[in-house]
Amino acid sequence: MPVSVVRHSEVDVLIIGAGPAGLMCANALANARVNVRIIDKRVAKVTAGQADGISPRTIEVFQSYGIGERLIRESCQVHLAAFYNPSSTGGIELTNRAPDVTAPSARYPFELALHQGAIESIFLDSMEALGVSVERSTTPTSIEISQDENELMDPTSHPVRVALQKLDTSEGQPQEEIVHAKFVLGADGAHSWVRKNFDISMDGEQSDFIWGVLDMVPETDFPDVRNKSLIHSNYGSCLLVPREKERIRIYMQLADKDLINPATGRVDKERMGPEQLLEVARKSLHPYKLNPTNGISWWTLYIIGQRVASKFSIKNRVFIAGDACHTHSPKAGQGMNASMNDAHNIAWKIALVVRGWAGTSLLSTYESERRKYALDLIAFDKTFSTLFSGKPMTEQNSDGVSHEQFLKTFQTFGGFTSGIGVHYNPSVVVNDKNQELASGLVIGERVPPQKFLRAADAWPFELQDLLPSDFRFKLLVFVGDFSNQLQQARVESMVTDMQKPGSFLNLYATPGKSSVDSRFDVITISQGRKEVFDFLRLPTLLRSHWSKVFIDDIDVTGSFGGQGYSYYGVGLEGALVVVRPDGYVGAIAPLDRAEELDAYFASFMKIAV
Amino acid sequence: MPVSVVRHSEVDVLIIGAGPAGLMCANALANARVNVRIIDKRVAKVTAGQADGISPRTIEVFQSYGIGERLIRESCQVHLAAFYNPSSTGGIELTNRAPDVTAPSARYPFELALHQGAIESIFLDSMEALGVSVERSTTPTSIEISQDENELMDPTSHPVRVALQKLDTSEGQPQEEIVHAKFVLGADGAHSWVRKNFDISMDGEQSDFIWGVLDMVPETDFPDVRNKSLIHSNYGSCLLVPREKERIRIYMQLADKDLINPATGRVDKERMGPEQLLEVARKSLHPYKLNPTNGISWWTLYIIGQRVASKFSIKNRVFIAGDACHTHSPKAGQGMNASMNDAHNIAWKIALVVRGWAGTSLLSTYESERRKYALDLIAFDKTFSTLFSGKPMTEQNSDGVSHEQFLKTFQTFGGFTSGIGVHYNPSVVVNDKNQELASGLVIGERVPPQKFLRAADAWPFELQDLLPSDFRFKLLVFVGDFSNQLQQARVESMVTDMQKPGSFLNLYATPGKSSVDSRFDVITISQGRKEVFDFLRLPTLLRSHWSKVFIDDIDVTGSFGGQGYSYYGVGLEGALVVVRPDGYVGAIAPLDRAEELDAYFASFMKIAV
Repeated sequence: MPVSVVRHSEVDVLIIGAGPAGLMCANALANARVNVRIIDKRVAKVTAGQADGISPRTIEVFQSYGIGERLIRESCQVHLAAFYNPSSTGGIELTNRAPDVTAPSARYPFELALHQGAIESIFLDSMEALGVSVERSTTPTSIEISQDENELMDPTSHPVRVALQKLDTSEGQPQEEIVHAKFVLGADGAHSWVRKNFDISMDGEQSDFIWGVLDMVPETDFPDVRNKSLIHSNYGSCLLVPREKERIRIYMQLADKDLINPATGRVDKERMGPEQLLEVARKSLHPYKLNPTNGISWWTLYIIGQRVASKFSIKNRVFIAGDACHTHSPKAGQGMNASMNDAHNIAWKIALVVRGWAGTSLLSTYESERRKYALDLIAFDKTFSTLFSGKPMTEQNSDGVSHEQFLKTFQTFGGFTSGIGVHYNPSVVVNDKNQELASGLVIGERVPPQKFLRAADAWPFELQDLLPSDFRFKLLVFVGDFSNQLQQARVESMVTDMQKPGSFLNLYATPGKSSVDSRFDVITISQGRKEVFDFLRLPTLLRSHWSKVFIDDIDVTGSFGGQGYSYYGVGLEGALVVVRPDGYVGAIAPLDRAEELDAYFASFMKIAV
Repeated sequence: MPVSVVRHSEVDVLIIGAGPAGLMCANALANARVNVRIIDKRVAKVTAGQADGISPRTIEVFQSYGIGERLIRESCQVHLAAFYNPSSTGGIELTNRAPDVTAPSARYPFELALHQGAIESIFLDSMEALGVSVERSTTPTSIEISQDENELMDPTSHPVRVALQKLDTSEGQPQEEIVHAKFVLGADGAHSWVRKNFDISMDGEQSDFIWGVLDMVPETDFPDVRNKSLIHSNYGSCLLVPREKERIRIYMQLADKDLINPATGRVDKERMGPEQLLEVARKSLHPYKLNPTNGISWWTLYIIGQRVASKFSIKNRVFIAGDACHTHSPKAGQGMNASMNDAHNIAWKIALVVRGWAGTSLLSTYESERRKYALDLIAFDKTFSTLFSGKPMTEQNSDGVSHEQFLKTFQTFGGFTSGIGVHYNPSVVVNDKNQELASGLVIGERVPPQKFLRAADAWPFELQDLLPSDFRFKLLVFVGDFSNQLQQARVESMVTDMQKPGSFLNLYATPGKSSVDSRFDVITISQGRKEVFDFLRLPTLLRSHWSKVFIDDIDVTGSFGGQGYSYYGVGLEGALVVVRPDGYVGAIAPLDRAEELDAYFASFMKIAV
C-alpha cells in the first residue's frame, strides 16, 4: 500500500465556496494578480434555480470589472413593476405599473434576471483568462489560526492552516493537503462551515412566512408576464419575475403550517410538491390562466430567516461573506447582490494588504461597512416582507395592506433595493470632511454616473468607466475654470504641493516604478469648451497621458454631457476627490489643502519597502 | 510521376478576393447559410497600413450583422474635425473645430479608425463560427460564363466556370481545381483580374494630385493630434487622422512631378522615401514638432485615379465590387466604406435568388444602385479633392481656397461622406409611392435610428436593432392609436386582408414552415402608454411572439424614446412600411391598401416550389 504523504502548500488567499460571493472575490483578486485559490465541495456549478436577481448597483460593479457587457447581453431586463390587487368580481386586476427601479442616479435603470449558473460562468470565464479556476470536489476538514501575535502582526506570514480533502481523484482515494494561507474567505453559504468552526453566532430569528418557488416557461394570458408583478390576492401574495428567454419565476406565500416537520422545525419538501404549488399560483393569478409549457424546471420551499452573523472577521485573517453572514427573504431581490457586494468590498482591501501597500486597519473596515449594511437589509426586509405577506385591504378586510401603503414602501426603499443608496460610515478609508466642495459626490457612497468629454478628442466617456476596480485609488482633480488666471495659479500651486517629497503621490510611489500611476490614477476634469480647450496647457502632473484629461462639455451632437460640475456640486474653485478602488468616494479636499489627502492616506497606507 | 487529375466542384457563390468587400459578402452569405467559398491569392491578411476609416453608416451595417460592438470596442473614435490654416507669423494655427460627422440622423455620430487587418479579423472570426474561412494562396487562372441561354435562365444551374490554382501545397506542386459556380463576385481590388477578364472598362481619369501617407506613433505638441485635422499650409495640404492606440496617419500632398517615372506613368517609390515624407509633414505642421517615437510603421505614395467601372455585372452571374468598381482619393475616408457597402448590397440579393425566393430582376438592382452611388462618389471626390489640394487663400494668394468655402463643402457633403444620405432610386425593390404616409422613412434610404419600448416589458429597443441583416423583409406595422375604436376596426380589416390566400404573407410562405416569419418579420409599433397598454388585445397576426410588439413611449426614466411616430412622420392613421433585408425602406402602403404590398413583392419575389 502506498504511504500517504500529506502535501503542504502556501497561498496568499484561500476562498472556500464558489458561489457568487466566492467567485466575485476570486475574480477580483485574479484581476489584481493576487495569488489566490478557490475551492468548492460541489462537483459542478449550479445549472438551474437558485438566486437570479441583479440590482442596478451590482451591474455597475460588474461593469467596473469589465464583465458588465456580457452580463447585460445574457440577462433579461426588468423595467416595470406591475401591482395587482383583488378585483370586485373575484380574482385580481392591474392596479398600476411603475418603474421597477426608483433610484434616480442609477446608471442602469433596470434590474437584471439571469440564473445563477450563467452568472457563475461569467466569473469562471473571466478568471480562466487570468489562470484561476475552481478546485471542485474539495472539502475543508479543519481550519486554525495561529495564536502567535508576532505571526499575526506580520503581513507576510501565513497564519491560517486549512486541511483540504479532494474527494474524487483519479487514484480512487481522497487526497489530503494542508494549505497555509495569509487570508481565508469563507463564502460557503447559509450553513457556512467556516462560520461554525469559529463559533460565530447568527443573530435574529426565523419568520413565520413560508414561501414556495416555481420556475417554468408559461403559457398564459396574464398581461404582465414579462414585468415584475407584485400580486396581492385573497388567496395569498405572489411575486412573478420574468427571466432570460421565455422563463418566469413565481414566488408564492404558503399559509399552511402543516409544511413544517415538527421533528426538525424545518420545511418538509415531502409535504408539498410542484403540482400543489402550481395550484396555489393558479388561485392567486385567477382569472388569468397559467400552464407550464414544458413542466416545472425547478422548485423549492423555504422559511424566511432574518439573521446576521455577530462578526464577519476573525483576527482580520479569516472573513466570511455572502449567505454565510446574512439570510433574509428573496423577494426584494437582494440576496445574491448583498453577497457579491460583500466580496467586492473585501477583495481590494485584501489585495492592498497582500501587496504590502496597506496596513491591517484597512481590513477592519470590511466588517464595519458590510455588517451595518446587512443589519439595514434585515430591517428593510422585515418591513417589506410584512407588507408583502399581509392580507390585502378589501371591503371585508379593512385592516389589510393598502396598495398605496405598499407602493410607497416599494418606492421609498428604491434607493436601498437598487444598491445605489448604500452609504459607508466614516472610517480610515471614509473621511467625511469637505463634503460641501462636492455635494453631489457623497462621501461613503459610490460615484454617480456622468459623462465628460476627453479633452484631446472630444470622445465622450462615462466617468464610472474611468474608475475600474483595478485596485488603484483614483484622484479626480476638478481644476475648475483653468482659463481664469487666478484659478490657474491655484492649480499650479497645488501641483507644486503635490510634487513635494512628503506628498502622498511621492510617499507611496512604488519603488522601481517611474509613474505615480502605480497606486494612484490621476484624472483631471476641467471646465472648458471642446472647440477651444488646449489640454497641453495643463501642468504635466495633471496629464500623465493625453487620455487623462476631460472637460465638462456637451458632446458634438448636443445631446448629452455638460453640467457635470453642477451635478457633482463642484464650484469654479474646483476640488480634489479621492475615489476608492471599489468606486466609493473616500475623501475630498480643496485644491489649496492637498495635504489633507496626505493625512487620509497616512491613516491606512504603508510606505513601500 | 503522379498523373495530375483536376478536381471539379460545385458551389453556389465563389468570391474572388478577401479584402473588406469580399469578406463582407462572404460573412453575409455565411450568415444566410448560403453555400459560399472565398479565395485570395495572398498568403495572409494585411497586417499594417491600407484603408482605415469607417463611416457612421458602415458602423450601422456592422451592427446589423452583430459585429458592431466588437468594431467599436477595437476602434479609435473620431468626433471632432480641426481646421488649420496659415498663421500671420508663419506656420499654421487652429482656425476652428467642428463635429466630424454632420449627418443629424447618424446613430453613431463619429467615424472609426482601425487598420484593415483588424477589420478583416472581425469578419474572419464571424465567418469561422459559421464554418467559412478564406482559401489563401489560391489564384484564379480562367473564368467563363456559359453561353447557353437556358442554363443562364435556370437559377439552379452553375454556369460560371472558374479554374483555380492553389500555389503552395504540402505536396510541393500547385493543385488545380475547376469550380462550377452559380454566381461569382470579383472583389479583387483596383487591378481586378475578374474585371479585366471581362474587358470591363474603367471610365474616368487620373488626377494630377500625388499624395504620400505615413503611419507612426508620434511625439508631438500639436494640440489636435487626436482629432481629424485638415491642414492647409503654405507648404501644401495635409490630413492627420488619429488611429487605434497611440497611432496616427498623415496624408500629405506632394507637388513634385518628379515622382512620376516617365517610362511607366506611375508613381515611383524609388524617388521618395519615408524620411523625405516626414520632412514634408514637418514643414506643413510647423511650428508644431513631429517625431515618430518608433520609426515609420507604414508608408506609401500614390496618384489619385477617379474612375468607375462601365458595368458592375456580367449577365447577372458575375459581379464586381469594391475597388474593382471604383477608385478615388482616400481623403474623404470613403474607399473601404464604398467597398463594404457594395458587398452589403449584393449579398442579400444573391442569397434570395440562391434560395429560389427571388428572380434575377432583383440582381439587376445591384448595378443600378451601386454604380449610381459610385458616380456620385467620384463627383464629390473631385470637388473635395480640388478644394483640399488647392493653395490656401492668404493675403499673397487671394485666389486660394478660403476656410469658409472649405468648411461649407465639408459640412454640405456630411450626409454623403457619413454614408447616411445614400439614396437608391426606384426599381423593383424601391417603390416610391405613398411617401407622404411616413415622410421620415425616406423610400430608398436606410431607416433612421429611433427607440421604442417593447410593449410586454417596457424594455427600450433601437428600431435598427430589430432590422438585422438576416435576409428577411421586415414589415413595420404602425397601427396608430389602437385604443381608438375606428382605428382598431381599420387594423382588424387590414389583418383580414393580409390573411387572404393571395396576400404576400401567405403567397410567399415557405412550404413546410408554419410561421410567416420565414421570409418576413412582422413588427408592430403602436401608439400607447406603458402604464396601461395591453398588447394581448392586438390581432394575433400582429404579435407572433410577445417580443414583436412595441409602443411609441418614453422610457421609465423619462430620458429617451417617444415621439417616434412624429419623427418618422407617421400619422394616427398608421402605415405599413417594408424594410429591405439591407435596412433600406422598400415600400410604404396605407393600412387599408395592403394589396399594394402584394404588387411590390410580386415584382421580384417568386412563389416557393
